[in-house]
Amino acid sequence: MRTCGNSGCGGNLAVDFTKEEIRKSDCGHSRGKLAVVGMGPGDPDQMSLRAYKVLQEADVIIGYKTYIDLLGELVKGKEIVSSGMKREIERSRIAIEMAAEGKYVAVVSSGDPGIYGMAGITLELVEKQGMGNKFDVEIVPGITSANAAASSLGAALMHDFAVISLSDLLTPWELIEKRLELAAQADFVTVLYNPVSKKRTEQIRTAREIFLKHKSPATPVGIVRNAKRGGEEITRTDLEHFLEYPIDMFTVVLIGNSQTYNTENFMLTPRGYKV
Amino acid sequence: MRTCGNSGCGGNLAVDFTKEEIRKSDCGHSRGKLAVVGMGPGDPDQMSLRAYKVLQEADVIIGYKTYIDLLGELVKGKEIVSSGMKREIERSRIAIEMAAEGKYVAVVSSGDPGIYGMAGITLELVEKQGMGNKFDVEIVPGITSANAAASSLGAALMHDFAVISLSDLLTPWELIEKRLELAAQADFVTVLYNPVSKKRTEQIRTAREIFLKHKSPATPVGIVRNAKRGGEEITRTDLEHFLEYPIDMFTVVLIGNSQTYNTENFMLTPRGYKV
Repeated sequence: MRTCGNSGCGGNLAVDFTKEEIRKSDCGHSRGKLAVVGMGPGDPDQMSLRAYKVLQEADVIIGYKTYIDLLGELVKGKEIVSSGMKREIERSRIAIEMAAEGKYVAVVSSGDPGIYGMAGITLELVEKQGMGNKFDVEIVPGITSANAAASSLGAALMHDFAVISLSDLLTPWELIEKRLELAAQADFVTVLYNPVSKKRTEQIRTAREIFLKHKSPATPVGIVRNAKRGGEEITRTDLEHFLEYPIDMFTVVLIGNSQTYNTENFMLTPRGYKV
Repeated sequence: MRTCGNSGCGGNLAVDFTKEEIRKSDCGHSRGKLAVVGMGPGDPDQMSLRAYKVLQEADVIIGYKTYIDLLGELVKGKEIVSSGMKREIERSRIAIEMAAEGKYVAVVSSGDPGIYGMAGITLELVEKQGMGNKFDVEIVPGITSANAAASSLGAALMHDFAVISLSDLLTPWELIEKRLELAAQADFVTVLYNPVSKKRTEQIRTAREIFLKHKSPATPVGIVRNAKRGGEEITRTDLEHFLEYPIDMFTVVLIGNSQTYNTENFMLTPRGYKV
């Protein structure tokens, strides 16, 4: 049995409606809605008001268990569908199925759902299944790690930049290497996502070697763990020494451009003002 | 005369304190604070809760007049320092001066203050004036146009990407051209900020020519004007035709990578899932 959830429908329905009957009934919103919601860095304070409102209004919250737990009171009493890591396709399929039934479904994603998050796979499946016009779709942007980490470092991005994930789970490593090479040549401030996992420890070394071919060993590097959430750790160092510090999947590594500098307090990339 | 502002101090002070006297008085917070606050795209719903709280708590709000006006009720009754465009250095100087006097000063910046925003110039001046330890500093990140526009298009960023400003006001055009060339070679999804102004109309044509050297004319391009705020306009087109649509300073242009595709509803860049 599927019910209309407990948001706006007077709680769980006692009658065992079939799915078809529920779709026809005007259950507050006869047309379903699918929102992919950016939670930002994890601290609820860094979430947008729009994200809050969507989570409050949704009937069903779907997400990776760790993220659902972070939401605490905000999703209390909602229908929850949570699953472990690497189950993105499964979560997207369930979300689409429930939205097609007329529910208001929120898929949560850390950071910005459009940056290596749940927006892509969910919309790919929506399109593949021809569901694009069957229910309303909203992508709710969030603050991604690059922005969160840069703000904790000071003003480290401030100029043209590139974001590259070092995870070769879904991307050929050759392409990642090529992008690192060209980003270094372009003198982009470069933010590395997924720099190191338990199984992947060599990519960050290769990335460093590539950057050292094009940039000074003194180029400032910022390492931010748990950016803008509990347990934040900030390290300001340089291209020569940054591998001496712990780096894991909760960390982003930000490599400055040729103008970036570290002060006692901040990592700064000037934009070009004459000061 | 400078007063303590009207937040937490019982309103404007009737006595004409000198600056020195105010600094010594315990006016709710004897140590000053300077926050550079990301307003996000402009719709208050897309602002983080942290940004809201800082604006509520601050004594003084400093910013470009148009942005201050957007804040409406939120800054009512505060001490306001607003000025026109291109007065970033002036605004930063005033903010530092007032924070040094012990006030809680919020400098507002659209989008993320760390992406071509007010964080850079403000912190540069803080450091230059040796003020880094004189008051507390916080950079409050916000949702930047790249993320806002991508979410309105569907899931257009989803893979490694570059952000490049086409404004050569503070950056040599040769460097911008080099970065465009390398971003195109790297097959980054590329987001162009400040694509066209009243005076700058040629840069976007050059950018298109550079991308056409490396990418198919059918490469999807999204144009988003007023992303995630009132009057939003979304255009999904391709590299060959995108100059046929209006582009201005309220617009970002997002050029897909070789895998990006347009559907009836969305612009999508797959991450590599097998669906």
